[in-house]
Amino acid sequence: MVAYTPGEQPQGGGWVKLNTNENPYPPSQRALEAMRAALADEGALLRLYPSPDASPLRQAAARLHGFDERHIVAGNGSDDLLNLLIRGYAGPGRSVGMLMPSYSLYPVLAAAQGAEVIRVPLMPDYSFEIEAVARCGAAVFFLTNPNAPLGVAFTSEKVRALAESFPGLLVIDEAYAAFAETHCAELAKSLPNVVVTRTLSKGHALAGLRAGYALCPPEVAEVLHRVRDSYNLDRLAQVAAAAALEDREWLAVTVSKICASRTMLSEELVRLGWKVNPSATNFLLATPVSAQRPASAATAAHAFDFLRQRKILVRLFPHHALTENALRISIGTEVEMAQFVAAAKAWTKG
Amino acid sequence: MVAYTPGEQPQGGGWVKLNTNENPYPPSQRALEAMRAALADEGALLRLYPSPDASPLRQAAARLHGFDERHIVAGNGSDDLLNLLIRGYAGPGRSVGMLMPSYSLYPVLAAAQGAEVIRVPLMPDYSFEIEAVARCGAAVFFLTNPNAPLGVAFTSEKVRALAESFPGLLVIDEAYAAFAETHCAELAKSLPNVVVTRTLSKGHALAGLRAGYALCPPEVAEVLHRVRDSYNLDRLAQVAAAAALEDREWLAVTVSKICASRTMLSEELVRLGWKVNPSATNFLLATPVSAQRPASAATAAHAFDFLRQRKILVRLFPHHALTENALRISIGTEVEMAQFVAAAKAWTKG
Repeated sequence: MVAYTPGEQPQGGGWVKLNTNENPYPPSQRALEAMRAALADEGALLRLYPSPDASPLRQAAARLHGFDERHIVAGNGSDDLLNLLIRGYAGPGRSVGMLMPSYSLYPVLAAAQGAEVIRVPLMPDYSFEIEAVARCGAAVFFLTNPNAPLGVAFTSEKVRALAESFPGLLVIDEAYAAFAETHCAELAKSLPNVVVTRTLSKGHALAGLRAGYALCPPEVAEVLHRVRDSYNLDRLAQVAAAAALEDREWLAVTVSKICASRTMLSEELVRLGWKVNPSATNFLLATPVSAQRPASAATAAHAFDFLRQRKILVRLFPHHALTENALRISIGTEVEMAQFVAAAKAWTKG
Repeated sequence: MVAYTPGEQPQGGGWVKLNTNENPYPPSQRALEAMRAALADEGALLRLYPSPDASPLRQAAARLHGFDERHIVAGNGSDDLLNLLIRGYAGPGRSVGMLMPSYSLYPVLAAAQGAEVIRVPLMPDYSFEIEAVARCGAAVFFLTNPNAPLGVAFTSEKVRALAESFPGLLVIDEAYAAFAETHCAELAKSLPNVVVTRTLSKGHALAGLRAGYALCPPEVAEVLHRVRDSYNLDRLAQVAAAAALEDREWLAVTVSKICASRTMLSEELVRLGWKVNPSATNFLLATPVSAQRPASAATAAHAFDFLRQRKILVRLFPHHALTENALRISIGTEVEMAQFVAAAKAWTKG
């Protein structure tokens, strides 16, 4: 059994940290106010157990999506929910399906539950055949949409068609949905075999807090409630996440800044001759090339090291043909993007 | 599969809440300061993932116990750690052992992992035979010490003797150790099959935050790290728990107040004719009796209802012969204890 390897968290300052798709901006100040209120009166509230079913967060998510609370389960980040889904629906004889490449946590969770993993390869144009997934035989299939680490999104029409033909439970992992133009939340209301997971870590800039939720049919919610910890979200995470979901203006402004930086970065890298994937996320998957160095895994590693020496941290995904030549670059602040572009130019021309 | 039922969390104010063994006092102000510091600068730190292995908390626990950090795994409350232990060491063919009565969460976690539960009954004097546990056949045995809901503690000599003769993994669940005179942390350093779990929820008044840790042999720590979520503790919980562990003076003062209230309450109830268990915890298990009503489950339920009508909430454990006649009463503030005693007197003289 292999542990999941999270991205490096460098110690000490001075790093331009573009390796774990964190939001470069501070979170909603309404989330901060909610936490400060929960800490008032010498923190007396902290001595009490939190709401066992994370009521504040579930109510806010219900209002946001127009769902009934019975459709919503809160998690300690969406990783907690992915884990609960595998505990509830996978195991020996009930395999876990995923696209390749996608989120490398699924096989780790599947192994811990003794479940086999069925990998459906994405085609070179990043598409997949609905039939190939529908007939793969998995009890539960995780569709990362938008895809990480590729960055591309599948249309909600395609996802709906897949959900209607897949005989098992389809989990749509929407960690990056805030940065995409469409999402599939509605499918969890209308189809009995669809779960949509969301996190507050990316769009809402609360990776440090661990909060997420699943939109799911009530029958699935009951299964997840049975396997989750009784108090899986603490008081501060519950109120902060609720306030963050309610601050839609903050989200709109922040996402629009990040998407503008994404467009700018993509244009700059294309100008340098790099190949850049379309992205519906807060990162770009880009293939570095220069006059001296054609696209290859060695070239990507060379650019990675060049950037790292300049204290710019990005991510390599060397284990798959669709990603091995590329760098995954999280979208940072405008200043960080300018620093990255300057270094990318120096590498390309160097 | 049955879900664990946490104690009632009443809505609205005015309750004397003595039902879930929360600490009646606000937590260490050093924990509050650590959280406020982590929220500074518009909460900019919250956008970053926390330390994946909860370094701040593990370092503080290592200093406190004189352990190496490799011996320590942090959890989202100690329930998270109990769950990880069962995921790592139990399953079909690898059963979970426990004393009866003890913590009702173990069978819930075992069921979720497909593990059989072996229950070793406590004797009427609340003792157990080492041989009965050592030969029970469980792959992993959970020894709640001090015991909940009985309140009594087993000596560290007895626990050591058990650990030395039990062939599987012995988990000593020390949720209430702060209120006991001895504990077994050292055993996790010297014996290869002993894990000790601790929570910050009871002694440290941080139930709302979800933080705990396990002291264990490094080989066990590796297994737990493999099955836990990569980011199972958020930033605020990590720094607050670390600061709380370091504030030993706060703990000493708070525990001494609670133990004094426990002695006072016990004496008052004995004076009323109630039977009161010895307690090494922050609760008393007490059997209400009056001239009209002998000790019985019906009498306990009657007293429970009488108290509840006066907005005093305690807990009933009707499913075991050793607890069915009794109320479990959490130790509250001096004012809350006076309110409880007045109501208990009214019921007894009723």
